[in-house]
Amino acid sequence: MVRRVPPGDTLPRWVCDQCGEIHYQNPKLIVGTVPEYQDKVLLCRRAIEPRYGYWTLPAGFMENDETTRQAALRETLEESGAQVDLGAPFTMISVPRVNQVHLFYRARVLDLEFKPGVESLEVALFEEPAVPWKDIAFRTVGLTLRHWFDDRRAGAFRFHAGDIQPR
Amino acid sequence: MVRRVPPGDTLPRWVCDQCGEIHYQNPKLIVGTVPEYQDKVLLCRRAIEPRYGYWTLPAGFMENDETTRQAALRETLEESGAQVDLGAPFTMISVPRVNQVHLFYRARVLDLEFKPGVESLEVALFEEPAVPWKDIAFRTVGLTLRHWFDDRRAGAFRFHAGDIQPR
Repeated sequence: MVRRVPPGDTLPRWVCDQCGEIHYQNPKLIVGTVPEYQDKVLLCRRAIEPRYGYWTLPAGFMENDETTRQAALRETLEESGAQVDLGAPFTMISVPRVNQVHLFYRARVLDLEFKPGVESLEVALFEEPAVPWKDIAFRTVGLTLRHWFDDRRAGAFRFHAGDIQPR
Repeated sequence: MVRRVPPGDTLPRWVCDQCGEIHYQNPKLIVGTVPEYQDKVLLCRRAIEPRYGYWTLPAGFMENDETTRQAALRETLEESGAQVDLGAPFTMISVPRVNQVHLFYRARVLDLEFKPGVESLEVALFEEPAVPWKDIAFRTVGLTLRHWFDDRRAGAFRFHAGDIQPR
């Protein structure tokens, strides 16, 4: 693979020096949920790097052949075992430093039969004062949780879009 | 490149049979705007395939190192030459058949100095009855335009999320 600007393009791309195929690198979508149960939010403690041992909302890379809603349901089930009713999109946050866009949906946990998937050490429900704010894995997750508790307090959930710029 | 399931993964991926590097293929974000000027919306007639000669909203592949807002502004300027004030996200539509998610922002055209970029044959403003509905390039664009004129008529713009499933 070599890096060069293909004909008619404006940016350098990775090009296979054997077959000439262009491998475009574009930002990836990370899709997940804010699963709520009564006054609590479900969080997963990560069993994988990066941020092993830290708490996160269930989320992961959207895969080909699925919609954002399907990705959100799949990742929630894979990481937390939770069956949820999916609601509206809640936050969409660009993270240009790592070429990602994080998208979280609201979701309602349907029963208490959840259990950690292979990528989680534990899964638990937290009321706002009990959220482990200092041990949240990613800034997009902390921001999403703050919007969620703020909106719930205000009595109206709305859609929040934003960016995480390098500190 | 060979296609196989890497250790610890659940889906087949393209793997370089020389260096072992895994080339993940995930859905790509197409980001653009609905540029408005008074009661009109700006459309571009495509100078490239697919859908050469059909009308579209300015939009294109989000690139690494940018936010969704930066991608929307860049694509609008590249394709239509229009300087715009960017508003809120307006539609987000998954198109699993082509592994894409289309995201459109509201935008206000700042002056009439726009002109077609290299990927456009022409650029023009359309009032609702004049929109070339039969010559719109993509279903996500038609859906976004219908939401936009409906919301304007209702006097309130809101965020619309959805999917385009194969016909």
